[in-house]
Amino acid sequence: MDTKNRESSDTHFMRKAFEQARQGFDEGGVPIGCVLVKAGAIVGAGHNRRVQRDSAILHGEMDALEATGRRPGAFYKDVTLYTTLSPCSMCSGAILLYGIPRVVIGENRSFMGEEALLAERGVDVSLLHDADCIALMRRFMHEKPELWNEDIGV
Amino acid sequence: MDTKNRESSDTHFMRKAFEQARQGFDEGGVPIGCVLVKAGAIVGAGHNRRVQRDSAILHGEMDALEATGRRPGAFYKDVTLYTTLSPCSMCSGAILLYGIPRVVIGENRSFMGEEALLAERGVDVSLLHDADCIALMRRFMHEKPELWNEDIGV
Repeated sequence: MDTKNRESSDTHFMRKAFEQARQGFDEGGVPIGCVLVKAGAIVGAGHNRRVQRDSAILHGEMDALEATGRRPGAFYKDVTLYTTLSPCSMCSGAILLYGIPRVVIGENRSFMGEEALLAERGVDVSLLHDADCIALMRRFMHEKPELWNEDIGV
Repeated sequence: MDTKNRESSDTHFMRKAFEQARQGFDEGGVPIGCVLVKAGAIVGAGHNRRVQRDSAILHGEMDALEATGRRPGAFYKDVTLYTTLSPCSMCSGAILLYGIPRVVIGENRSFMGEEALLAERGVDVSLLHDADCIALMRRFMHEKPELWNEDIGV
């Protein structure tokens, strides 16, 4: 894929991840969304369900991985993961566990996850500085700071 | 707690984690178990449920974290996590996310997880070289190598 097509594709799939985040927000949850893409198609989509499922582990990326189903290791080796927010240590660890080679991040101004670790381990990390992702997280962090702190273990 | 009491306590809780692993084996699953301990009591127990729940994320440690419930970050700051096998990158990332300060590992001969990363980030990591944990994993890896590879993304 050339650079222009890749940028267009990234914008498209980040929008899908954002729609997941927006759905989470509307449900009263933590507004972080994720989609997994393989061969140009979404194979799993999810959003943070800490509130909705009373869960300690269902971050957006984990929810999308679970939605993708139980797969052999080879399945993940050409998957791209799109997430609206820089992935925390748990979600980054899951990316490394399954050997997902590429991660596209909506924004990292609200929270800086383990991007350096991912890059160090050979993951191709792209950051989009997406204005909608930033605005949604800002609104959430302002409205529900305790919930946000809980989600990142603070 | 003095050294002798800590060793006795570690042996006791590793046995509880092993019972979880054994339950997982009996269910036809990946035999890795975990308990979370706070103030001398188990606050969450679980085992790998990849097979049982058709899950990509329910490793033993994740299952135990989920069983512990949705908690504020402060809850985890004096928790010890006992796991029968060296924790993979996902589970190690979850330990770092919640700031769990101490991890006791049954064995790492069958699989070496992210012990170095945990230690580097300040987690107190103890390794018991537990013969029962080693024997159960050896049996499982011999009987179901494909399932084991799937669990670690190979």
